[in-house]
Amino acid sequence: MTDLPSKILQTAVDQLATLPGVGKRSALRYALFLLGRDEGSVRDLADAMVRLKTDLHRCRHCHNLSDTEICPICASEKRQRGLVCVVENVQDVMAIENTQQYRGLYHVLGGVISPIDGIGVHDLEIASLVDRVATGNPYAVDEVILALPTTMEGDTTNYYINRLLQPYGVRVTTLARGVAVGDSLEYADEITLGRSIANRIPFEQ
Amino acid sequence: MTDLPSKILQTAVDQLATLPGVGKRSALRYALFLLGRDEGSVRDLADAMVRLKTDLHRCRHCHNLSDTEICPICASEKRQRGLVCVVENVQDVMAIENTQQYRGLYHVLGGVISPIDGIGVHDLEIASLVDRVATGNPYAVDEVILALPTTMEGDTTNYYINRLLQPYGVRVTTLARGVAVGDSLEYADEITLGRSIANRIPFEQ
Repeated sequence: MTDLPSKILQTAVDQLATLPGVGKRSALRYALFLLGRDEGSVRDLADAMVRLKTDLHRCRHCHNLSDTEICPICASEKRQRGLVCVVENVQDVMAIENTQQYRGLYHVLGGVISPIDGIGVHDLEIASLVDRVATGNPYAVDEVILALPTTMEGDTTNYYINRLLQPYGVRVTTLARGVAVGDSLEYADEITLGRSIANRIPFEQ
Repeated sequence: MTDLPSKILQTAVDQLATLPGVGKRSALRYALFLLGRDEGSVRDLADAMVRLKTDLHRCRHCHNLSDTEICPICASEKRQRGLVCVVENVQDVMAIENTQQYRGLYHVLGGVISPIDGIGVHDLEIASLVDRVATGNPYAVDEVILALPTTMEGDTTNYYINRLLQPYGVRVTTLARGVAVGDSLEYADEITLGRSIANRIPFEQ
């Protein structure tokens, strides 16, 4: 891309291009679009971005994003408080909430164990999960559902958490994996189809 | 998309989704990415955006973006100051500068006449262009190159400017249009190919 006519524009483009999946060309498009907007609305956008870092909390219990100290899910009396679903990140909570099939609570780890990326046990909310199970605070836990990704890192984290939870006699389960609803068997990968067969369930009439 | 767990996040997503070509899903991706960055770098990005509106100037002569009152192109003694290329916007200046073939100055109109979009003559830098030609201030103008888009609006604006410039005896030219270098004639549209034939030039040996 060419030299821009202005250092201020160049800085804005460089900054916008740090967003994931945004190249210099899109960044320039965004910058020129912002130039065409009034100062107030550009300030609104900029403030909303800064407030993400200054005003947004993590729920004290489940570490999901929240505007309050305790998130609405943990605070809701309508949820099954004995059920805790362990997920990697906030997006996973949203995905599961979208199904409207889950009525328990969550525990957001903030990642999975990955020595290559330098993410160890202490970078994740694992101790706080064990604490929830061990102390029954804020609520007694009957079952922990491991919903981490099916990668080597996810499997390692599952294994590690399961071992830590053993002493407390809590039920530990994991998500069913298999061929997606509507997908044809012909095009499913072998591992997924194999899981579907191994984990077959009683036919419901 | 699902309800987000936080109004602050929701506001940031809504704001980011006002950028051109950015949907709610990309906006959420940007917001979560910003969440993972440190506050300082998010502030840097936000500030760079606001500075576009507060610190960026338009060159007093050509109305191109500039950090200074007179842009580097207008200020440069190496440019042909008698030659003024009229373009729709800042992106067009960058595109022409990229060719490294043009050594004259520019005049950025800030759009083209478009009654449907409510853009009239007085919303554009047309009077200031006529003024440049009429007064020879800052520099005497020998030739005005019209490089506006080949749309009805662009053609209308070309026609209007040409008429305004007639009294001053300045040479008015327009960009050559034709089949792009490397394109085969077979796939060129008829109007473009027709222009290439009509505007044929002496063969250079």
